Amino acid sequence: MNEQQGIKPYVIGLDLGGTNAVFGIVDQRGEIKATTAIKTQQYDTAEAFIEASVNALQPIIDQVGGIEKIRSMGVGAPNGNYYKGTIEIAPNIKWAHDCVVPLGKMFSDRLGGIPVAVTNDANAAAIGEMVYGVARGMKNFIVLTLGTGVGSGIVVNGQLVYGSDGFAGELGHVTMVRGEEGRMCGCGRKGCLETYCSATGVARTARELLDKTSRPSLLRDIKPEDITSLDVSIAASKGDELAKEIYEFTGKMLGEACADFATFCSPEAFIFFGGMIKAGDLIMDPIRRAYDEHVMSVYKGKAQFLVSGLDGASAAVLGASAIGWEV
Amino acid sequence: MNEQQGIKPYVIGLDLGGTNAVFGIVDQRGEIKATTAIKTQQYDTAEAFIEASVNALQPIIDQVGGIEKIRSMGVGAPNGNYYKGTIEIAPNIKWAHDCVVPLGKMFSDRLGGIPVAVTNDANAAAIGEMVYGVARGMKNFIVLTLGTGVGSGIVVNGQLVYGSDGFAGELGHVTMVRGEEGRMCGCGRKGCLETYCSATGVARTARELLDKTSRPSLLRDIKPEDITSLDVSIAASKGDELAKEIYEFTGKMLGEACADFATFCSPEAFIFFGGMIKAGDLIMDPIRRAYDEHVMSVYKGKAQFLVSGLDGASAAVLGASAIGWEV
Repeated sequence: MNEQQGIKPYVIGLDLGGTNAVFGIVDQRGEIKATTAIKTQQYDTAEAFIEASVNALQPIIDQVGGIEKIRSMGVGAPNGNYYKGTIEIAPNIKWAHDCVVPLGKMFSDRLGGIPVAVTNDANAAAIGEMVYGVARGMKNFIVLTLGTGVGSGIVVNGQLVYGSDGFAGELGHVTMVRGEEGRMCGCGRKGCLETYCSATGVARTARELLDKTSRPSLLRDIKPEDITSLDVSIAASKGDELAKEIYEFTGKMLGEACADFATFCSPEAFIFFGGMIKAGDLIMDPIRRAYDEHVMSVYKGKAQFLVSGLDGASAAVLGASAIGWEV
Repeated sequence: MNEQQGIKPYVIGLDLGGTNAVFGIVDQRGEIKATTAIKTQQYDTAEAFIEASVNALQPIIDQVGGIEKIRSMGVGAPNGNYYKGTIEIAPNIKWAHDCVVPLGKMFSDRLGGIPVAVTNDANAAAIGEMVYGVARGMKNFIVLTLGTGVGSGIVVNGQLVYGSDGFAGELGHVTMVRGEEGRMCGCGRKGCLETYCSATGVARTARELLDKTSRPSLLRDIKPEDITSLDVSIAASKGDELAKEIYEFTGKMLGEACADFATFCSPEAFIFFGGMIKAGDLIMDPIRRAYDEHVMSVYKGKAQFLVSGLDGASAAVLGASAIGWEV
């Protein structure tokens, strides 16, 4: 790889979100050399999206010395399938919500035939941590992305776990509350980790607690339907007891889930990524406590609990670019 | 490997149980060429156990042409650690219950320096299925051993998941019933899958159901404390409604657990191994039904539910021998 790197020192990363498609050209150290973005939903077809992407990319490719300097491209996208290089039935992207889009091949064809790897954003984050972040040198770890949903990327024996179909690593959909009392999940099932521990889940816990009790809280100044996990975090950092309890509850459930995940792959680290971890120790402390309390004794004290080492603003692009080095 | 195999066509497998230590000399096709056994607990020290093992092995090694025909040895043992070649604090083995025994090195030193791999019995079963059994050609699958306990061996990307410490794959200790109502587990925690779905768990469910209701059952002819999972299986096969309900309950919990495991590694198969699966469709049908009902839609219909392809009587020895081919 090293000789090739000398000639082709860069990869393109694409963080394909529901709103923005952000591109970065990245070197092996994780330094972003150039960046650009387009609106994901401004196009009716995948072809139109690719056309606009390539037009946006051309100036930044030229800026680093042309396509011959680019080794490959990595795409982090909802429902990205690594084996097929596709995104499949991605509900939040209008040109991919009802079909399978061969995004990898389409980009490759327009970018001089460079290899293009596609996976979901959580898997991209996991490779990102391994290539540029806090998981450098690790062979067994789990990245949990706490955002609008809960995603996961799992690395075992130094390799990402894609499973038999490319869709492995959906720890956000482990059932934490069984039976009818489990919260309804977007996946159609009940009681998934995501319904409690995503940003959306935290806001829901806040509304439930405010509704169920008459305890005073700074959160009562906000219209219930407008409460976000950020509001809860701000209130908690001001010492609001109810807000702190929400993070206790959320962290406890995450810690218990991590204790279960440990029985699977006994990871050396759980790495947390995404907007929710801005709450810092408010969320990390209860996670660690619940893990220590619930994990099987053989695993006790072995796993680290870490916060993502990727720069917040560009973390997703870095993650996407990282899978480019793997192809 | 092929050239070496020509010269050294056999591996030794050791199934180290709490009662018997069974040795087999096995070829690449999984044919057992010779076998011998000693009593595990008849020795006060690991050294004495090894001495007796080597004495018992010598005649069968000679029988296949001497130690130069043996490629390696694989040991399936409680608390076997693949990375270190040790068994560690194995509660049921008196010469290993309070210490770390470097079993791999001890055997290797006495057997002409052949490589010796050690792992737990469930991991050995998983490699056994991959080398000789129903998982031939598979890259992603889970073996669940349903016996006195519930063990698991997990294969991802064609490799066994040992985790950061060699102790990964303890799916029997995923928490299925949270909180105080969970059954007490031998691991010191509550609500583990094993407390419900092992042979012991099935007998416990039987006692609970008999105690809670006054429904008629063939199982009432047996003293509650003497009921085994085999009794439940026999009663169920005679049409006993209560016994059938016990398998429904057990299979449902296993199916739900498998649905959670799928989110981890999206396996192409779940393979069931051990005494409990002699109950056949009584247990397999409810597992499949509960899985289909609870699994996330992206995984639906993708995984096979299979019964071990290793010959029952010698399955554990075959499993142990199989890890010999991997070193």
